[in-house]
Amino acid sequence: MKKQMINIGFFAILLFTTVSAFSQSGVKVERIKEVESLLEKMTLEEKVGQMAQITLDKFRESADPVKLDEEKLREGLVKYKIGSILNTMKNRARTPEEWHYIISTIQEVATEETRLGIPVVYGIDAIHGTTYTAGATLFPQQIGMAATWNRELVRNGAEISAYETRASSIPWNFSPVLDMGRDPRWPRIWETFGEDVYLTSEMGMQMVKGYEGKDNDVDDPTHVASCLKHFLGYGVPFSGKDRTPAWIPEMELRERHLPSFEAAIDAGAHSIMVNSGLINGIPTHADHYLLTEVLKGELGFQGVVVTDWADIGNLHGRDHVARTQKEAVKLAVNAGIDMSMIPYTFEFCDRLVELVNEGEVPMSRINDAVRRILNMKYKLGLFDTPVTDYKDYPKFGSDEFEQVAYNSAKESITLLKNKDKVLPLSKEVKVLVTGPNANTMRPLNGGWSYSWQGELVDEFTEEYSTILEAIQSKIGKENVTYVPGVEYDLSTKKYNVEIPGDLEQVTAAAADVDYIILAIGENSYTEKPGDLHSLRLSENQIELAKTAIATGKPVIAVLNEGRPRVIGEFVSDLDGLLQAYLPGNMGGLAVADVLFGDVNPSGKLPYTYPMHVNTLMTYDYKPSEHQKKMAGMYDYESDFAIQFPFGYGLSYTEFEYSDLQLSTNNLSGDETLKISVKVTNSGDRKGKEVVQLYTSDLYASITPDVKRLRRFEKIEIEPGESQTVSFELTAKDLAFVNRKLNKVTEPGEFEVTVGGLKEKFEYTK
Amino acid sequence: MKKQMINIGFFAILLFTTVSAFSQSGVKVERIKEVESLLEKMTLEEKVGQMAQITLDKFRESADPVKLDEEKLREGLVKYKIGSILNTMKNRARTPEEWHYIISTIQEVATEETRLGIPVVYGIDAIHGTTYTAGATLFPQQIGMAATWNRELVRNGAEISAYETRASSIPWNFSPVLDMGRDPRWPRIWETFGEDVYLTSEMGMQMVKGYEGKDNDVDDPTHVASCLKHFLGYGVPFSGKDRTPAWIPEMELRERHLPSFEAAIDAGAHSIMVNSGLINGIPTHADHYLLTEVLKGELGFQGVVVTDWADIGNLHGRDHVARTQKEAVKLAVNAGIDMSMIPYTFEFCDRLVELVNEGEVPMSRINDAVRRILNMKYKLGLFDTPVTDYKDYPKFGSDEFEQVAYNSAKESITLLKNKDKVLPLSKEVKVLVTGPNANTMRPLNGGWSYSWQGELVDEFTEEYSTILEAIQSKIGKENVTYVPGVEYDLSTKKYNVEIPGDLEQVTAAAADVDYIILAIGENSYTEKPGDLHSLRLSENQIELAKTAIATGKPVIAVLNEGRPRVIGEFVSDLDGLLQAYLPGNMGGLAVADVLFGDVNPSGKLPYTYPMHVNTLMTYDYKPSEHQKKMAGMYDYESDFAIQFPFGYGLSYTEFEYSDLQLSTNNLSGDETLKISVKVTNSGDRKGKEVVQLYTSDLYASITPDVKRLRRFEKIEIEPGESQTVSFELTAKDLAFVNRKLNKVTEPGEFEVTVGGLKEKFEYTK
Repeated sequence: MKKQMINIGFFAILLFTTVSAFSQSGVKVERIKEVESLLEKMTLEEKVGQMAQITLDKFRESADPVKLDEEKLREGLVKYKIGSILNTMKNRARTPEEWHYIISTIQEVATEETRLGIPVVYGIDAIHGTTYTAGATLFPQQIGMAATWNRELVRNGAEISAYETRASSIPWNFSPVLDMGRDPRWPRIWETFGEDVYLTSEMGMQMVKGYEGKDNDVDDPTHVASCLKHFLGYGVPFSGKDRTPAWIPEMELRERHLPSFEAAIDAGAHSIMVNSGLINGIPTHADHYLLTEVLKGELGFQGVVVTDWADIGNLHGRDHVARTQKEAVKLAVNAGIDMSMIPYTFEFCDRLVELVNEGEVPMSRINDAVRRILNMKYKLGLFDTPVTDYKDYPKFGSDEFEQVAYNSAKESITLLKNKDKVLPLSKEVKVLVTGPNANTMRPLNGGWSYSWQGELVDEFTEEYSTILEAIQSKIGKENVTYVPGVEYDLSTKKYNVEIPGDLEQVTAAAADVDYIILAIGENSYTEKPGDLHSLRLSENQIELAKTAIATGKPVIAVLNEGRPRVIGEFVSDLDGLLQAYLPGNMGGLAVADVLFGDVNPSGKLPYTYPMHVNTLMTYDYKPSEHQKKMAGMYDYESDFAIQFPFGYGLSYTEFEYSDLQLSTNNLSGDETLKISVKVTNSGDRKGKEVVQLYTSDLYASITPDVKRLRRFEKIEIEPGESQTVSFELTAKDLAFVNRKLNKVTEPGEFEVTVGGLKEKFEYTK
Repeated sequence: MKKQMINIGFFAILLFTTVSAFSQSGVKVERIKEVESLLEKMTLEEKVGQMAQITLDKFRESADPVKLDEEKLREGLVKYKIGSILNTMKNRARTPEEWHYIISTIQEVATEETRLGIPVVYGIDAIHGTTYTAGATLFPQQIGMAATWNRELVRNGAEISAYETRASSIPWNFSPVLDMGRDPRWPRIWETFGEDVYLTSEMGMQMVKGYEGKDNDVDDPTHVASCLKHFLGYGVPFSGKDRTPAWIPEMELRERHLPSFEAAIDAGAHSIMVNSGLINGIPTHADHYLLTEVLKGELGFQGVVVTDWADIGNLHGRDHVARTQKEAVKLAVNAGIDMSMIPYTFEFCDRLVELVNEGEVPMSRINDAVRRILNMKYKLGLFDTPVTDYKDYPKFGSDEFEQVAYNSAKESITLLKNKDKVLPLSKEVKVLVTGPNANTMRPLNGGWSYSWQGELVDEFTEEYSTILEAIQSKIGKENVTYVPGVEYDLSTKKYNVEIPGDLEQVTAAAADVDYIILAIGENSYTEKPGDLHSLRLSENQIELAKTAIATGKPVIAVLNEGRPRVIGEFVSDLDGLLQAYLPGNMGGLAVADVLFGDVNPSGKLPYTYPMHVNTLMTYDYKPSEHQKKMAGMYDYESDFAIQFPFGYGLSYTEFEYSDLQLSTNNLSGDETLKISVKVTNSGDRKGKEVVQLYTSDLYASITPDVKRLRRFEKIEIEPGESQTVSFELTAKDLAFVNRKLNKVTEPGEFEVTVGGLKEKFEYTK
């Protein structure tokens, strides 16, 4: 069988080189005809099967060696006619060879043993590189990619992930996450691009284009179909816990949660996954308004709407809006779900067939769903190339790709504190390295790395350097003392089990060194197992930090964490502080390069770093969060206390802003406002700076946010040199969602802020 | 002048005895005529003046002795024709004599020196008794009153407060708070009746009837007009901070926030105060939909809508929905505001006159506002009796009233833990009393007690017992050792400044005693100065608790706190735990009586007590907050961790529930479902029990809450005896707000839960 697939692989390469010669519109017409002709041939059972997605383990005979149970596979593909499979086998990354065997076996049954020979579309979570393939290039997680504020790095990373996912024979990637990372408690905030609407929208578009190609030609076998998730409002559950209810008024849903999806849909994304939670008491999987009226209607989304894991079942079993599992299927499909990530049973198929036969689900809805699925399969080239072959992907896991991952990691690292320029360190020093994040690759990668919770990372990452190892290479092993102080229990999937160490040993070891490097943060997790009860850093780690500080030696902390854990109890006593987020396999090297000055840090926070557990806030707040003293008896001030603001990050050089120029102070109608600013590197080394442009609407019919990010550009400047950066804005960029749910720009005064400089202008219609 | 007022006082007594003889409807017709005839005579300036409310300090000449500046008073009343004054002088409780002087002086100018002689309506925050009058009876704050689950106590307390407020010559009380206490971070949760919609509605109705009388005959000089606050959604700001934005979808606004106001409006409340914050970006003071369409239209509210402190100004200065102060006035008045609590300047009057003259505010709106204000003044009898006189109120501050305050305090105290029946203590023991709440009256009363932040409490409460003093009286001073351990800095208004004590002294003192009584919690605060950054109990107090526990002596903690501070780090090591809330001046006695068994505790928590700072939840949550393990790879369970549930509270006796009977298992249409349950006191002492009836809607078109309180009754049972308690429900009681904002009861299965017993029934239309 492998041989046959290799042939198909060669064909794929041919396609790769010739597809761009076809007329795109001709291809489209042809495809629509094929889809419609296929749809006409299909029985109800065949249609419903296409809407079913099953997890790979259902078809597992053995995981070691990887072997599929072909009888079970036939039950799924031939009897139930299922159209999609997802996930890895037994929650573990597989080699490209194993993937090739898996997908080939599946496609052989699907294309040769089913009546119509429709290929399966296989989907995977390749969220920061090809997560579930051994040897793939792992990038910083999305939160780190956002911290680079570098669109090109985001696109390049996605291009490489697409290539390596196709090298793993998989054409469909459940990425990017376009949920808003506005709640630091939420265990998936690190899977987002952070708290800002514009930054998330910009990075999301880049990622979609990186996955799907400039022209969304996903039949190119180096491209994959992207899957935007999780539509809509998944990132802001009331309790901060994963998959719990959110309360979001529609104005806010449209103001802050819809734009990133809208931008990615405009960028051509082929599929979308639905929010597992409730919004305002309504499970999104049963929400006809959001899925059909807003998404498919208003936003004109033409792709596939897939559920999240088991979420149709949850409409009955968890959320109690359906009295039976069958009613759950009816609600979801009628609401606009095209494909059900079931993932373990075939009953969905039987139930949906019954519902159609009973007139409870209209055939038009089934046809719409299947049309979308078949269309995606055609666009992915699966009818021609059901399997791609790793042998055709020589760059898989290459140094070239790793360099991009390294570049991303180094540009993500965010310097938050540098007292008396303690950093960069000289390479002629002795250091004590301590902390649970110092000598393990697992937290550097985070969840969705070789396994769901990331617990297998260290098994797959022997060749990469931990923070400790990278420091040892940098300044010589003999100059580095390592005392863990606290360790994560790496034997468990649970992220929050720690093994306290001997703090006296830390104190003793500090006596002989010049500096202490404190690598702290969190172990890997995702989704519900990552829920927390307190955002405060763990008690053990706080004790360790205080112990290190008490030695009197300068302490530089490296944060390696999925979410901003509260460090307010000791941060003021640190000399240096780096935020490394979840930088991936190249993170250890990047951290060491920043610490010792081989890299000048240029990351900026994509979220507001909280100072206290119960003071959680985003930068785009309403003015009343920050109240000045009132006159008279009620002489209070509000205490708006954050640790570090959104967009913050230091450099080893200094940048000065001057000459903020507006092309006009009276913007009218559809005119373009040109804004320029001069940025000077007034320090003594080359550096990158993120020029951030914010606007403030001074008065509006809805209380305006204090400011909003509207544009940014990352530039590199030589010492002593200047660059002028130009931006353009139109009234549309200043709009907000008003009470009638319209996006409007009201006439009035606005303020532009860039690098601390401010200018006002007046907008008239 | 005083003499003259005494005469008016006598007249008031006459009124008091004769008013009930008038025909109510005749009185009403007469009043409407008078209001309309007065309105016709008024100039625009006179009308606008009625809509203005100024704080007393504006007219202060000296505070010691209390003296008004009559020239300033004339400026306000004669020149600007203002209709209302509020607040105490210089943030300090005043004697009844001082109040009589103040109100008499004001009314003399208003009634004798203005063209139409319209009396001023004076308003005050008499929120747990007559807060700002020295010698008045202070009750538990609302959260404690809610914890009694005793409707009669709530009504009696309000009756006494009304009497004592009138004894202070004041006819208008800014109480009750009907905001939902659903966020333990919020610094005013203790001013609410807690988190439940039904409990809040029931207690709110009682309080309104207590203030206004059974027939809302507020011209009875023992009654006052109530003021419901703060319409609407004030209690759930996103950040937990006071007066900050809330995001509340309208379904939730109607499901959980509107009912308590609706019930109190149905109970005849005469006025309502508006939420200072934003809901969904819209300042409530500028929200025509909520104030006019919902409140005055849908709910048919006929009373006065008054702003909160300076909140029209905030529309411009803080919330930026108005470009100028004048535009702010326009927005607010057009939205439906009847009276502006300005409180320091007269510019509101000038601006509003201009706006009417310019056609920006219609005269019909002005007439509507003034009609409501004049109507309230007539109803309050102010035209006949502008001033009541303390001399006519012999029961002011009486033992009889204090007994009611004591009964409320004792029924509020909630026993949360009683390991091995450590409580009640024998009176033949030696105890160590420690903690910052042990020997000060200030935290027992909380904010709004003699001064805004409560910092003057100890100066006014010499005659009352602190917890320490009450314990000393109970078992003899010689058996009580007192070591504070931690103290509040009582010299500052700030609630969160503590003076750490000598913990070794605590350890040493414990050696000689049988038990440790640990009095901990919070100092007094309200509103914005009460904001917090962490719900965790203060570090000093946690250390003190751990020190006490480490002695090995049994530790009984008494919580005296406005909100449930997190005690999860040590609660499992306590032997006994009482929640005293803010029990008022009789709180020390009540705590001692419970500790030593003279009172059998019967309070129940009116909120969910959190276990962790970032796991904040109410009892009426959606099922997904509490997730069972799923099958397959994603083998997580959610960790729903609370300290003590809503409705929880132990007794020194035991109650057993049996024989839960439903009159039918098939409720149809408008039928009444009768539910009865037998409660047996199976312990050995008399006790009170709160029988709580919850229902669960098993499936609905909106994910139903796991359960909802529908009925409760507090009963007293002798040991060994039983009582059968009966309740009635109709379908209306089971309703929820659906997506179309209609309140509906959908057919289907429901479950009734009482005291751990469950029964199901089916509802059909």
